[in-house]
Amino acid sequence: MKNLLFSIVAGILMGLPAFAQQALWGGQDIVSPEIHDDNTVTFRFMAPKAVTVKLAGDFLPAPGTADLKEGKDGLWVYTTPTPLAPELYSYAFIVDGLKCFDPNNVYINRDVSSLTNIFIIKGGQGDLYSVNNVPHGSLTQRWYDSPTLGVSRRITIYTPPGYENGKQKYPVFYLLHGMGGDEEAWITLGRTVQIMDNLIAQGKAKPMIVVMTNGNVVQEAAPGESSLGLYKPVMRLPKSMEGSMEKSFPDVIKFVESNYRTTSGRAIAGLSMGGFHSLHISKEYPGLFDYVGLFSAAILPNDDVQSSVYDNIDEKLKIQFSKHPKLYWIAIGKTDFLYKANEDFRKKLDAAGHTYVYYESEEGHIWKNWRIYLTEFVPMLFK
Amino acid sequence: MKNLLFSIVAGILMGLPAFAQQALWGGQDIVSPEIHDDNTVTFRFMAPKAVTVKLAGDFLPAPGTADLKEGKDGLWVYTTPTPLAPELYSYAFIVDGLKCFDPNNVYINRDVSSLTNIFIIKGGQGDLYSVNNVPHGSLTQRWYDSPTLGVSRRITIYTPPGYENGKQKYPVFYLLHGMGGDEEAWITLGRTVQIMDNLIAQGKAKPMIVVMTNGNVVQEAAPGESSLGLYKPVMRLPKSMEGSMEKSFPDVIKFVESNYRTTSGRAIAGLSMGGFHSLHISKEYPGLFDYVGLFSAAILPNDDVQSSVYDNIDEKLKIQFSKHPKLYWIAIGKTDFLYKANEDFRKKLDAAGHTYVYYESEEGHIWKNWRIYLTEFVPMLFK
Repeated sequence: MKNLLFSIVAGILMGLPAFAQQALWGGQDIVSPEIHDDNTVTFRFMAPKAVTVKLAGDFLPAPGTADLKEGKDGLWVYTTPTPLAPELYSYAFIVDGLKCFDPNNVYINRDVSSLTNIFIIKGGQGDLYSVNNVPHGSLTQRWYDSPTLGVSRRITIYTPPGYENGKQKYPVFYLLHGMGGDEEAWITLGRTVQIMDNLIAQGKAKPMIVVMTNGNVVQEAAPGESSLGLYKPVMRLPKSMEGSMEKSFPDVIKFVESNYRTTSGRAIAGLSMGGFHSLHISKEYPGLFDYVGLFSAAILPNDDVQSSVYDNIDEKLKIQFSKHPKLYWIAIGKTDFLYKANEDFRKKLDAAGHTYVYYESEEGHIWKNWRIYLTEFVPMLFK
Repeated sequence: MKNLLFSIVAGILMGLPAFAQQALWGGQDIVSPEIHDDNTVTFRFMAPKAVTVKLAGDFLPAPGTADLKEGKDGLWVYTTPTPLAPELYSYAFIVDGLKCFDPNNVYINRDVSSLTNIFIIKGGQGDLYSVNNVPHGSLTQRWYDSPTLGVSRRITIYTPPGYENGKQKYPVFYLLHGMGGDEEAWITLGRTVQIMDNLIAQGKAKPMIVVMTNGNVVQEAAPGESSLGLYKPVMRLPKSMEGSMEKSFPDVIKFVESNYRTTSGRAIAGLSMGGFHSLHISKEYPGLFDYVGLFSAAILPNDDVQSSVYDNIDEKLKIQFSKHPKLYWIAIGKTDFLYKANEDFRKKLDAAGHTYVYYESEEGHIWKNWRIYLTEFVPMLFK
């Protein structure tokens, strides 16, 4: 067999008729995005028949799009006029009005029912979101029983480097997603594995177990990961902010503490709906969590929600704070639509004399902020 | 807060200028693909300005494409004329010559540097590839040290339901990917987690640990999961079929057997390049594996490859078979480009009087066959 490697490459492409195989798996000999040394970025898209090709990206100034210019052989090109700051960015192409992914970039994240291509500019926060040559923790996706909800549920667990080969016990950080998310949100758009590996390697975070739950109580697992099959995900699921998540949370803690080598150190934080859950779970079980983080949190339930979880909130907060949590951390962006709700909540805490730490960022209700909040919050835990 | 849920949904969409936000995250109120009760499937694509919209799919007869018809408001539609057999299928749209993913289907698999949408027709094999209401094993992505290769490497490990909560020891099945794949190939296109959960629940497979390695010796981890960043993957990586994978395999076994509760039962199988690795690893360490599976395997290395691993093959096979492996299983499709290489190898085994089991399927060098081979092979293990 003279050239086996070539034969395999060719052979893999033989499983389908030529046209379909080209359409399904045919590659393009193009690099996109190309991140230059100065952190400007070039995007390329091959579309000989297109009339307009635009780029939509969360790094572009308003209106958030830019025009690619057609060059040789139908290759459209756009280079950012200025370097991009270190960050994880999302983008897509709009070809004659139609959203298209970048066929030269296999890195795609799902946010509820939408997919976008991503790329990372290194340096600063970008380095924290990247895989580096540091010791790596493990990531496990498994199932636990929730007697309160009456179902088996999927859960994502990060264990720090060295966990499996030692006898040491570790504190546990419960990290909760927002509406439309699930037990995979923090490991995809949230970059939690990379952030934890890097902060631990830098000595900025204590080694800890990170537990990422599914906060949609009607859902056993992320879309595609349950017996519901490969259905189209939706943003809003019923009953997620009506008390059940809070009431069923002891099932999670019991599972974690009977399956992992844990200390009594516990932290809980979440974004948006997950911040709401963190607020109410930590208040329902006062003294259980030493550290509480509200990332762009929703604060109060809908007026029509009836659950004992949301009764006597002030009284329950008083009990919670009387146990002196080591950190109660509230973070929100200046333009977040929940800014006023958080401001009102802080006024309430101030009036009651409850101690908390406040962190205000630029921008609003976006993953960029939640990643930043995570990198700010984790170094304060379990010190 | 009168309608918090609505506020959050609206608020999440406020992070970006309207046009970019629509392009990046705007959803379409369309269902595609829609799998009907009779297993015909309707595909829908919204493209008011398009001149032609085609569907490319591995379920379509030659030439592997079909035309969608434009209906009301620019919605293009195609329904398969006949029911599809239970299976996992891949597809994409071709809009005026341009490959586009289905924006209404978030389920996408990567194969080397290409992405395709997927869907599953239930029943038969389709049920084995689906998540069902059965006990679920755990899936862990972690890193191990390979002293032979001098690096830390990523590895994917399935543990069967009950593993974490018991004391029982389990046999280990090493499952290897093909060229262009990595330690994620068998859990994405291979559906290994679902297949194992289902076969174990049906009593057709013994509970076992499944270890999925990375067979590209120059690669520490799958694309995007190493310090090389989010680069564009390629099919061919150097040195993967030159003996190093075989020589470094004891590092994997040592890691697994010192980190998991294992019996002495070992199986190894792989597809294409992974079948090549399985052949040569099992021959290099005779007696180590009771079960060997070659799925559409490459057999011999390139003529210019120099490695002691490929010296004295006949003699080494003789030693291996003298230890009476419980199963030596060779599977290939009738139209596989490696059919003749496998036929020659079987003739060699026949001539030497070595006992093996042969399984011949329809079609060629495709994932459909490798999933079938996995579901055929696993029930024969560790009985």
